[in-house]
Amino acid sequence: MKPQLLKGTRDFLPEQISKRKYIFNTIEKVFKKYAFAQIETPAMEALATLSGKYGDEGDKLLFKILNNGDFLEKADENALTTRNSYALASSIAKRGLRYDLTVPFARFVVLHQNEITFPFKRYQIQPVWRADRPQKGRYQEFYQCDADVVGSDSLIYEAELASIYHEVFKALGISVDIKINNRKILFGIAEAVGIEDKFMDMTVAIDKLDKIGADGVEKELLERGITAEQAKLILEMLSVKSHQELKAFFKEGSEGLKGVAEIESVFQLSKVNTGLDNLKYDVKLARGLSYYTGCIFEVALDKEVHPEITMGSIGGGGRYDNLTGSFGMPGLSGVGISFGAERIYDVLEELNLFPADVIDQAAIVMMAFDDQSLEWAFYVGQMLRNEGIAVDVYPDPGKLKKQIKYAADKKVKYAGIIGEEEVRTKTISLKNLISGEQMAYNLETLTELLKQEK
Amino acid sequence: MKPQLLKGTRDFLPEQISKRKYIFNTIEKVFKKYAFAQIETPAMEALATLSGKYGDEGDKLLFKILNNGDFLEKADENALTTRNSYALASSIAKRGLRYDLTVPFARFVVLHQNEITFPFKRYQIQPVWRADRPQKGRYQEFYQCDADVVGSDSLIYEAELASIYHEVFKALGISVDIKINNRKILFGIAEAVGIEDKFMDMTVAIDKLDKIGADGVEKELLERGITAEQAKLILEMLSVKSHQELKAFFKEGSEGLKGVAEIESVFQLSKVNTGLDNLKYDVKLARGLSYYTGCIFEVALDKEVHPEITMGSIGGGGRYDNLTGSFGMPGLSGVGISFGAERIYDVLEELNLFPADVIDQAAIVMMAFDDQSLEWAFYVGQMLRNEGIAVDVYPDPGKLKKQIKYAADKKVKYAGIIGEEEVRTKTISLKNLISGEQMAYNLETLTELLKQEK
Repeated sequence: MKPQLLKGTRDFLPEQISKRKYIFNTIEKVFKKYAFAQIETPAMEALATLSGKYGDEGDKLLFKILNNGDFLEKADENALTTRNSYALASSIAKRGLRYDLTVPFARFVVLHQNEITFPFKRYQIQPVWRADRPQKGRYQEFYQCDADVVGSDSLIYEAELASIYHEVFKALGISVDIKINNRKILFGIAEAVGIEDKFMDMTVAIDKLDKIGADGVEKELLERGITAEQAKLILEMLSVKSHQELKAFFKEGSEGLKGVAEIESVFQLSKVNTGLDNLKYDVKLARGLSYYTGCIFEVALDKEVHPEITMGSIGGGGRYDNLTGSFGMPGLSGVGISFGAERIYDVLEELNLFPADVIDQAAIVMMAFDDQSLEWAFYVGQMLRNEGIAVDVYPDPGKLKKQIKYAADKKVKYAGIIGEEEVRTKTISLKNLISGEQMAYNLETLTELLKQEK
Repeated sequence: MKPQLLKGTRDFLPEQISKRKYIFNTIEKVFKKYAFAQIETPAMEALATLSGKYGDEGDKLLFKILNNGDFLEKADENALTTRNSYALASSIAKRGLRYDLTVPFARFVVLHQNEITFPFKRYQIQPVWRADRPQKGRYQEFYQCDADVVGSDSLIYEAELASIYHEVFKALGISVDIKINNRKILFGIAEAVGIEDKFMDMTVAIDKLDKIGADGVEKELLERGITAEQAKLILEMLSVKSHQELKAFFKEGSEGLKGVAEIESVFQLSKVNTGLDNLKYDVKLARGLSYYTGCIFEVALDKEVHPEITMGSIGGGGRYDNLTGSFGMPGLSGVGISFGAERIYDVLEELNLFPADVIDQAAIVMMAFDDQSLEWAFYVGQMLRNEGIAVDVYPDPGKLKKQIKYAADKKVKYAGIIGEEEVRTKTISLKNLISGEQMAYNLETLTELLKQEK
């Protein structure tokens, strides 16, 4: 049979693994500095845990795992007779694949509430699965990378998460805008206009401002039953340059003012980190997800620095108030952020920002001219490995051409060449495969050289 | 709803993650020193790739993923009518979860044969899924950790893999026996007795020697149609103490002699690594898997050093000749080993061998008495983080008791306490939560102290 890869899935070759690990390690290092601890949850969750959490669309995109054994024995007879796939599925599949990291995390927090310390700061880097139609840049199996704190409503955490974004992207060499807004401010706008009942309609329209412009939003607001006068006031508020300006529109004690105060606190705390000059208030930032209740974050490339790249957001998050409610633990406030690792990979690739030494190569490939020489070549290799140096040994003695090609294909810098003469004199002919230079070393001087280059 | 975890699956809490990573990092470091490169394959493979590769039992244990959408539309009508689950499955599920790392690796090698360099040395550390009945120590989702070389029949690689086993377990502090045998020797035994046609029967019986003893094996051999005289000769050969002794039983040009020569070469090459004194020839080692064709490895705890632990093998592997044959690429020889990571975890736990600092803790938790102090506490935290120190900041100012308990629960060593006085004098009261000592520091001296302790 011909080997095949399922559509929407990928193999990762060594070079890709090295680059992916570079991204994840950079992020993890910062997470740890901010005292976030890693957890993992299983790929398989009960479908009862996952169903109904992602809307009707999400439910359709869940991968369901067929029960093992004679699964038809307990199948829904009616669904079978009427050939109703949807109704049948729940009777023949009780497991599903993780669709995101958030719902399993909520399940985890409730299940382990007596084993963890609140506020609980966790990060999680694991694949998720979605039965989306595969297309360029959209996979059915991809990694998510989340950090969340649950069990506190302190704005300290908003400031920490903004700093984490800042530090990670700085370390990766990507210039970004970290946009912040607050759901309470968005609600305050609805409040100020007197359309609290149309808050979600308004938010959905605002969310499209970047795409369809002010005129487009106005049109959409009118279509959603908001008057022209109300729409005008909304657009006026959306044109402010800072959260401070919004105070003029909001009444004492309003949600809107609370939102402004929260943003002010986050900016105040963030000033501490002198490097954090790219946290920017953006009144237009709404994000589609309806479960946010406080601050909202989104990270985008700084268009002035990276004008050549068109790329959606590479990070996002916010505060939510009821993550664990559906698992019987209401009232737990949390805030979290997510890194779009797959997109970050593409950005680093496009900007050529992966470090030159990102790929783990052996320092040297040992090569032998004949069987007798191979033993000394192998011995040298083992001695170097004992010193912590990564060594490859070409297994088939003989002509050098093939062996040099092997080393060059793997982008290894040095060839350690062994023939009769080297065995007799206990030396190694070291060839630099970049410069072409060749020189004799003994084991001691070779070890020294390779250790210095590490 | 009550949160639930599927039977046979596990959540990993931060402490478990740290310990698991310690094991994987230790193994990876050695893999890299021997120039093995990491790859990853998707969790979901085409069922056509997985089916028929693990025998009938294995096929039953594959987790199959229900096709999305109206899967009944293309369902096998006959199977539906006759309520035949087995026949129906293949028409409503085209995807399955990875059952091991070997078959996906074979599929990977054939698919990417033009992108990789042979001999291809790869390692892979990923979860696999099996619908086994869950029980203590047996999970439906667990990690495998494999290193293989394909595209060469050189015994250099057997020697390297033995060294990898040696170095990893030495680094973990576990004393092990690395047992080696060769399928050709086992075949040679059958050859010497004249029962080549009963080779598999004989191997299956030999495999049980440790469990059922010589009498048991003899009985089983007789049951499988081997004569008493033949069984006696087999048991005589099984009683040798070294591979050298077997030469007396094998004819010139026999498979048996080839096997002995291979073992000799591996020992010869392994002598190079002076530490490798735990590679032991074991004529009884057969391993159940029938696809091995050359050397076979198995790693077990050294019973003299660790008599208190009863544990099966914690590693195993061997050479195979036709890994990729079923994907249309015959004749590719390979050799690989596997680490039983889940069992190694249990051994390290039982022997208390995880290093004391295995768990990534923040160096310090910053605490404040009141809202005014929190800002200075947060500032100090950020300044320490800028120096690469892992810091947690307790978000709710107030009584110390709760804050100290938080730090103690997370096993953090220091509390950085900030009150009015500290804000005024720009100092930090540092409390060592182990000794109880408390002393005032300024930011500079505190940074110095915490950097030294890293």
